[in-house]
Amino acid sequence: MWFCATRASDLADPGAFRRIQVGRESVLVVRGHDGELRAFLNVCRHRGALICTETEGQVRRTLRCPYHAWTYALDGKLVAAPNIGSLQDDSGSPIDRVAYGLIPVALREWLGYAWVCLANEPPAFEADVIGAVTGRLGDAAAIDHYGMERLAVGKRVVYDVAANWKLIVENFMECYHCATIHPELVEVLPEFAKGYAAQYYVGHGAEFGDRVDGFTVDGRAGFEALPGLTPEQDRKYFAITIRPTVFVNLVPDHVIFHRMYPMAHDRTIVECDWLYAPDVIESGGVLDHSVELFHRVNEQDFAACERTQPAMSSRAYRQGGVLVPAEHHIAEFHAWTRQRIEDPQC
Amino acid sequence: MWFCATRASDLADPGAFRRIQVGRESVLVVRGHDGELRAFLNVCRHRGALICTETEGQVRRTLRCPYHAWTYALDGKLVAAPNIGSLQDDSGSPIDRVAYGLIPVALREWLGYAWVCLANEPPAFEADVIGAVTGRLGDAAAIDHYGMERLAVGKRVVYDVAANWKLIVENFMECYHCATIHPELVEVLPEFAKGYAAQYYVGHGAEFGDRVDGFTVDGRAGFEALPGLTPEQDRKYFAITIRPTVFVNLVPDHVIFHRMYPMAHDRTIVECDWLYAPDVIESGGVLDHSVELFHRVNEQDFAACERTQPAMSSRAYRQGGVLVPAEHHIAEFHAWTRQRIEDPQC
Amino acid sequence: MWFCATRASDLADPGAFRRIQVGRESVLVVRGHDGELRAFLNVCRHRGALICTETEGQVRRTLRCPYHAWTYALDGKLVAAPNIGSLQDDSGSPIDRVAYGLIPVALREWLGYAWVCLANEPPAFEADVIGAVTGRLGDAAAIDHYGMERLAVGKRVVYDVAANWKLIVENFMECYHCATIHPELVEVLPEFAKGYAAQYYVGHGAEFGDRVDGFTVDGRAGFEALPGLTPEQDRKYFAITIRPTVFVNLVPDHVIFHRMYPMAHDRTIVECDWLYAPDVIESGGVLDHSVELFHRVNEQDFAACERTQPAMSSRAYRQGGVLVPAEHHIAEFHAWTRQRIEDPQC
Repeated sequence: MWFCATRASDLADPGAFRRIQVGRESVLVVRGHDGELRAFLNVCRHRGALICTETEGQVRRTLRCPYHAWTYALDGKLVAAPNIGSLQDDSGSPIDRVAYGLIPVALREWLGYAWVCLANEPPAFEADVIGAVTGRLGDAAAIDHYGMERLAVGKRVVYDVAANWKLIVENFMECYHCATIHPELVEVLPEFAKGYAAQYYVGHGAEFGDRVDGFTVDGRAGFEALPGLTPEQDRKYFAITIRPTVFVNLVPDHVIFHRMYPMAHDRTIVECDWLYAPDVIESGGVLDHSVELFHRVNEQDFAACERTQPAMSSRAYRQGGVLVPAEHHIAEFHAWTRQRIEDPQC
Repeated sequence: MWFCATRASDLADPGAFRRIQVGRESVLVVRGHDGELRAFLNVCRHRGALICTETEGQVRRTLRCPYHAWTYALDGKLVAAPNIGSLQDDSGSPIDRVAYGLIPVALREWLGYAWVCLANEPPAFEADVIGAVTGRLGDAAAIDHYGMERLAVGKRVVYDVAANWKLIVENFMECYHCATIHPELVEVLPEFAKGYAAQYYVGHGAEFGDRVDGFTVDGRAGFEALPGLTPEQDRKYFAITIRPTVFVNLVPDHVIFHRMYPMAHDRTIVECDWLYAPDVIESGGVLDHSVELFHRVNEQDFAACERTQPAMSSRAYRQGGVLVPAEHHIAEFHAWTRQRIEDPQC
Repeated sequence: MWFCATRASDLADPGAFRRIQVGRESVLVVRGHDGELRAFLNVCRHRGALICTETEGQVRRTLRCPYHAWTYALDGKLVAAPNIGSLQDDSGSPIDRVAYGLIPVALREWLGYAWVCLANEPPAFEADVIGAVTGRLGDAAAIDHYGMERLAVGKRVVYDVAANWKLIVENFMECYHCATIHPELVEVLPEFAKGYAAQYYVGHGAEFGDRVDGFTVDGRAGFEALPGLTPEQDRKYFAITIRPTVFVNLVPDHVIFHRMYPMAHDRTIVECDWLYAPDVIESGGVLDHSVELFHRVNEQDFAACERTQPAMSSRAYRQGGVLVPAEHHIAEFHAWTRQRIEDPQC
């Protein structure tokens, strides 16, 4: 499946790299000298050393394994190795420097993020990723109005959550818990008090309360709406789940973008970006009230997920729990999950 | 099997609860408004969050899951949930609030403790628990003379032992080690120097030494004998193993009560209570010399068990070790254990 | 297989012992009153307690289990136990104190080290251990010239390496990495810059550089050559791998001896001794420049191994990596390993 790896702008210059854990694999995302992002397994072809151990960094021209100095171009090709001239393949010919290059991983850019897929034959990005957004918003162009690829990262918070990633998806998909654990969010979006998940209705966005001026922790005004929005998108909150690991939250003046990195059956790293129009950032706009709202939502949600994780092995949950009407759509996520466990190729 | 969960008096008032780990399950013991103790799996029926994460506490009227606010009475019944009116069972009827209540766990009170059993059909408490005491003391009424349910907890110590609970049982069952590791105990109970376990002989209690005035770390006098004791019970120590997880130690002026909470194959929490006549506690009696004796015994025993744990996987212990004549009764515990591993329903 | 346990001189006096972890077994190596070294499983025959929990120590006359006071002579025989007179075997005879003694482990001394083998029928020491050295040096007597059993331990460093022991073997077997990670070593042994492992050629030692006066971190002079060396052994470095867990490094004035203790699939303790002529130590010779060279090599190598360990589970390494011509002999180690995994009796 497609896994969101990193904000493309994190790797601004040629040679910038970031190391991402995708399941059991360490993946390297690198900006090439041609300006392209590429992804590779972060493993030297020679004897398996990690090419990069830092989380992120910047190289000048090549990726060089520090064990035996095998050296790769930013496009993955093997360009140098001690005594490389003596290396021969099984037929006695000089080795093919592409075949002995870093193992490539499929990569697509969209919404300003790099998405990678470890499969040899990745599923269609259009169906799986773009389709999830279109299906939710009901309009293929709706997401484009936010111009996400042009926004700037105003704030990033990384959460270390002691829960399985699927519990975090379930939590994000429903709003039955909103009245109980999200007082600030319900103040801004009064319809959330009723518990119906905005996500459930194609095209539906949750409206700001009458006395709410912006998507901020206390309802005060935020920033100007993003330039491309339609009037229907103003004063509304849209939430989108892009399975398996991404959540997108759209409000008029910013976008909150979550991506999960599952680390263990009971641990997930969540990286959350708050994206704003570049001129908001450049003009030194104060983001605190804007960021604080969803940061609290995140902390409230992740605490709930952590409280749920330990009971997953209880006999009391052997058949799963109870889905109330406002949560019935989670059953579809369960079916989706079961299908992929039973047939990983589906 | 019956597992001793908590001293009943720990939960004095309605709404008092304690959270206990029983194998893989988190169990909640709660005092109801009707004064009854009840036990439940500590898992919300809705989406599986832990109802209580604190080890112990006090609620006013209900147990409320902090995730979606499903709310249970102290008898486990579901009494409130957001939009509960919209919840229907498969036939379209309103849901049964008992069927959707917290999952009950069998509970019995005896000797002032709450005992729980996770089995759907618990074994007979009379045979398994009371029978173990009667079989050891040889007299069904003997334990009653100590009036354990009326005693007060003078001291509680919690030990975290890096050993399997069965090693702790084996240790408690035999006294062949007493001369080696329990100098203070042997001073008070000279027959323990010979290594024969008092437990082995039905009805037998180990007699205090001639110059010993009480069951204290230096043999000084303790408190007055508990009021109901017979002359045969005075100046004697009786030890009782109630499988799987309880030890009872009876001396004239107090009772030492151990219960184990197995946490991992090589880790056991042992909670040990020293129980005294309430007027001893109320009058401010100094318990130090009394408590210190068995506290030392505990520390000596648990150190020995921790020393034994690592060798359990050695080829040298593949067939088990050697049971000397004074330990032959441990073979019966081994047979009991093997039988329950082979047939968990036995 | 034969596993190097300890330097014999670490256990100088009768009653000196050292506790060694060999796979899952705790092994005790003890110096007897007759001056002999013996090894036993460190497990009491009675109830399985560890006889010794300290890493090393000194007893006076016997090894006494602190749980029930079963007491063993330094040759393993059971010499005392409480009520030992009452112990009978199945036929009712008094127990055989040798049969109930500590379980012996095969032990051989060579090069001043004690080597143990847990197998009931150990493989031939001459073939497996001595043969490895002879096969490498090409001359059965060559190792004797260094008089290793008479050397003194000038320095010992213990490294805790987050890598499988086999990665450390692979690293030691090849020198293709030398130019990249061992600048000081290559300075002293210029031929290492070419990457060909000295070990690969029977009898070959790597020659010191022309301007190098000794095997020191900056090439300054070391000490006088060991007395028995031949002229062919002077100004040369010989490396020997004795599988599974020992490396020997011979230079004219000292010997560097590594032994590994695998602790987990991804953790290995490496104990490294620097051995010198006793008069060098006695006269207070300054070892710093001598020790520093291989200490740096060790740290450089172990960092490389730790960098390689995480990728062992990557799909990129599923077929193993690439062996360049200078590493082809590692394939033989892979075959040797596979053979022993497939047939542990081979």
